[in-house]
Amino acid sequence: MKKIEHLGIAVKSLEASNALFEKLLGVGPYKEEEVASEGVRTAFFKKGPNKIELLESTTEDGPIARFLAKKGEGIHHVAFEVSDIEAEMARLKAQGFVLLNEAPKRGADNKLVAFVHPKTANGILVELCQEVPSNDHGGQPLR
Amino acid sequence: MKKIEHLGIAVKSLEASNALFEKLLGVGPYKEEEVASEGVRTAFFKKGPNKIELLESTTEDGPIARFLAKKGEGIHHVAFEVSDIEAEMARLKAQGFVLLNEAPKRGADNKLVAFVHPKTANGILVELCQEVPSNDHGGQPLR
Repeated sequence: MKKIEHLGIAVKSLEASNALFEKLLGVGPYKEEEVASEGVRTAFFKKGPNKIELLESTTEDGPIARFLAKKGEGIHHVAFEVSDIEAEMARLKAQGFVLLNEAPKRGADNKLVAFVHPKTANGILVELCQEVPSNDHGGQPLR
Repeated sequence: MKKIEHLGIAVKSLEASNALFEKLLGVGPYKEEEVASEGVRTAFFKKGPNKIELLESTTEDGPIARFLAKKGEGIHHVAFEVSDIEAEMARLKAQGFVLLNEAPKRGADNKLVAFVHPKTANGILVELCQEVPSNDHGGQPLR
């Protein structure tokens, strides 16, 4: 793990929260992206080496909709950048962490991603993410 | 705001969570520190440009004890590094954010800190933090 790549924040309205985070961070979102496989619309902000990802649900029963219903708006996950996601998944599994994915899947922002179960990580949904080489733009989940 | 300086994580036991985060991050804490004015014992981990701060309560009714009772272990706050905390506090106030401190106070890790009310920031407790010059080691709250 190299750094905090981004913080994922669950919001009710991307439009309203884009305006709020622009005021908070002093900079607007540099892109928006829909990830149909996850049922989310996202907006990304950059602060130095880190990003903030706002997540709005596009479905009534997706992971962000369920999070909002249970906990309200707030930090949904923290993503760490890794250089070899499969090696990192194997390392964490060997250390006793429970992974939510058997294999990396395609996430937002041109990344391969995998998640660690919050129950094994102090209540925190931890994402591992690895940049996909730019000649490999599938846009589809790997599985 | 320059970057995510650290993520603050509320834990029941610093000893148990230090071991867990050492497994997760692949690196141990580089320091522990008690902040008596806040009723916390903290441990710091470094990942590239960012830090993870674990927070254990030393009192039964302090902010971390109350957070744990209400929400359980998890992400407590996100801290952004600023170069002029008073200017940043004034900027946010003018934008409509509610600050929890009238003036910066001394926090852990040799920082001046101030907090933004979660109700005005999408449910997130946002900390502003500014490094204190190293010849100004008071160790006492400013107010």
